[in-house]
Amino acid sequence: MQDKLTLMIPGPTPVPEKVLRALGKHPIGHRSKEFQAIVSHTSEQLKWLHQTNEDVLTITGSGTAAMEAGIINTLSHGDKVLCGDNGKFGERWVKVAKAFGLEVEVIKAKWGKPLDPEKFQKALVEDKNKKIQAVILTHSETSTGVINDLQTISKYVQAHGKAITITDCVTSMGACNVPMDQWGLDVVASGSQKGYMIPPGLSFLAMSKRAWEAQKRSNLPKFYLDLNAYQKAAYKNSNPFTPAVNLYFALEAALNMLQEEGLESIYKRHYRHQKATQAGMKAMGLSLFAEEGYGSPAITAVAPENIDAEELRKAVKEKFDILLAGGQDHLKGKVFRIGHLGFISDRDVLTAVASIESTLQSLNLLNNKMGAGMAATAAKLQQLE
Amino acid sequence: MQDKLTLMIPGPTPVPEKVLRALGKHPIGHRSKEFQAIVSHTSEQLKWLHQTNEDVLTITGSGTAAMEAGIINTLSHGDKVLCGDNGKFGERWVKVAKAFGLEVEVIKAKWGKPLDPEKFQKALVEDKNKKIQAVILTHSETSTGVINDLQTISKYVQAHGKAITITDCVTSMGACNVPMDQWGLDVVASGSQKGYMIPPGLSFLAMSKRAWEAQKRSNLPKFYLDLNAYQKAAYKNSNPFTPAVNLYFALEAALNMLQEEGLESIYKRHYRHQKATQAGMKAMGLSLFAEEGYGSPAITAVAPENIDAEELRKAVKEKFDILLAGGQDHLKGKVFRIGHLGFISDRDVLTAVASIESTLQSLNLLNNKMGAGMAATAAKLQQLE
Repeated sequence: MQDKLTLMIPGPTPVPEKVLRALGKHPIGHRSKEFQAIVSHTSEQLKWLHQTNEDVLTITGSGTAAMEAGIINTLSHGDKVLCGDNGKFGERWVKVAKAFGLEVEVIKAKWGKPLDPEKFQKALVEDKNKKIQAVILTHSETSTGVINDLQTISKYVQAHGKAITITDCVTSMGACNVPMDQWGLDVVASGSQKGYMIPPGLSFLAMSKRAWEAQKRSNLPKFYLDLNAYQKAAYKNSNPFTPAVNLYFALEAALNMLQEEGLESIYKRHYRHQKATQAGMKAMGLSLFAEEGYGSPAITAVAPENIDAEELRKAVKEKFDILLAGGQDHLKGKVFRIGHLGFISDRDVLTAVASIESTLQSLNLLNNKMGAGMAATAAKLQQLE
Repeated sequence: MQDKLTLMIPGPTPVPEKVLRALGKHPIGHRSKEFQAIVSHTSEQLKWLHQTNEDVLTITGSGTAAMEAGIINTLSHGDKVLCGDNGKFGERWVKVAKAFGLEVEVIKAKWGKPLDPEKFQKALVEDKNKKIQAVILTHSETSTGVINDLQTISKYVQAHGKAITITDCVTSMGACNVPMDQWGLDVVASGSQKGYMIPPGLSFLAMSKRAWEAQKRSNLPKFYLDLNAYQKAAYKNSNPFTPAVNLYFALEAALNMLQEEGLESIYKRHYRHQKATQAGMKAMGLSLFAEEGYGSPAITAVAPENIDAEELRKAVKEKFDILLAGGQDHLKGKVFRIGHLGFISDRDVLTAVASIESTLQSLNLLNNKMGAGMAATAAKLQQLE
């Protein structure tokens, strides 16, 4: 049914009407006082979301642009880095690091498994000559629905004394607790079309004092993503290049809503939706792809045995106008993913589970009793209220 | 008066209601068929606007991102380039080239003067060993309101046989004739918040076959701006990274409007508004900053003698809610700039001139007879109808 689409993918996520109305306003001059006021306000709001005293810079570009900026502004040609890789985004940061001539040691985990913090500790402890300049990893691995133990890995990096962390928090920021200063995170990248509840086009980068020290030594070539220019402009509540003005309007409106809701409440909402989704899938006899206890608060990956996940996904879209995400690369057809990130309500979660259940039944693929999935989801939502 | 702002700066430019409504729609999945259809359609529309058979790629980022992409995807470390510099954007491309380790020979002209094509010809003819790999220049120099003779310079570059042109057409594309294929242009960069009539956040890059050949040899490091990834994705009507989905909605709506209007009509509209603005300024006794005959179709820079241009600009904003642009760098206070680019009507031009005239009078700075400026503008609009 046209214009009745519900997005339950890990981005773009649904956008509140209030935010769309802000987005659709007439643009204003990006060097005007009125726009400086918006930059100033959103900067403060972003600090709140990141739980940090450091500046959070806004870049017009995707989350990848922010991650690349974090990498190329703190490192130099030939620097050694540890890269965590347990999914598509982990893979991507390895590629970025190699594209810029860094020496990359990859710490892998199988897709669906979390990164093992002890492997990071081992590599860091063995690095007596302090060659490792950075540890690059993904907090919530969107491709597999796995959350990595960032807090523990960050602790090991701090014990190393020299390396900094560069973390993709694209689907964790605004979905679960990422207290940047408390965890001692150095570079934190995120993107607008996720927990932020606004359309894609903006990305965010927060850097610790240690990261800014590293930035002074960095010699990798850059211009559009040169954070020195962003920092200088930020002092004047401005941008070095023309920013996506209307997305800033949306950002301010969405952060206003998030602040009204409060951090605890935001995290609790995502936790409840994750648990309710998991309960529904299990009650239908479907297997979760992520290892037990390591499910992402943003997205649940489901690996239905003996079922073509793409066929199911397409049928749910066709019958119920709910867009689920498919599996990426070798997981295509084997996995589907339910985004419960951003502006998602209890109704959305209940509906998604009911729609999947109904679709499975209509395809003669439902093994358990019809209604069991929906009932388990409803029960979990009530239990965690 | 709140919410009654009229933008007459060189970007962001005013956005039509139809385009704002498209912008404010609920986002859809960027890997969906529905979005692929939009990418496919806008790609064709962009080719029409560029008058080219080559693909035009869309990047989420500012015009600077597109220009940087053009430079770093066609050149290699140590390559020699000629850079034209007769304003702030010319200066910027010199900085980008140097940031990436290129050997830069700068061909300068004083701010307000056009680049001299004969200087390019001389340098290119003297380059017997074909060391020059690219000529980088700005078509419409927004900081000074000067248009450079791109057609002639491109002809000289083609005669060289090896070098390619990399051109900032950010404020000329959609404002005046830039027939990419006919002029033999190799890399053409532009941005959304200009003649395109949509808010900032997208930029566009068209490359000739010669430029794609150069791309294969290029060794400068890149990832977010690696055009190889954009080209591969473009074959599937997709993007390598999550694009600004809502700005694509706006792009399609705006290009629909431009196609209805037709290229000839778009160019004539900008030409009339430029001439009418110039006539109004002259009739008020104000000097134009750009050399006679080299005014940009996008923007008119005015250098009022014995008048603080910033004071005037601020008073026009305060009294009449029209935002004009100020002078940049050493021109601050000496120049103000009237944008007549994008979604600008005869009424806007007439009103801008009348508001400036009225403001000058109220500040006791009007030398000529009150009404002379407005009358000259109205006459020119009628004459060029």
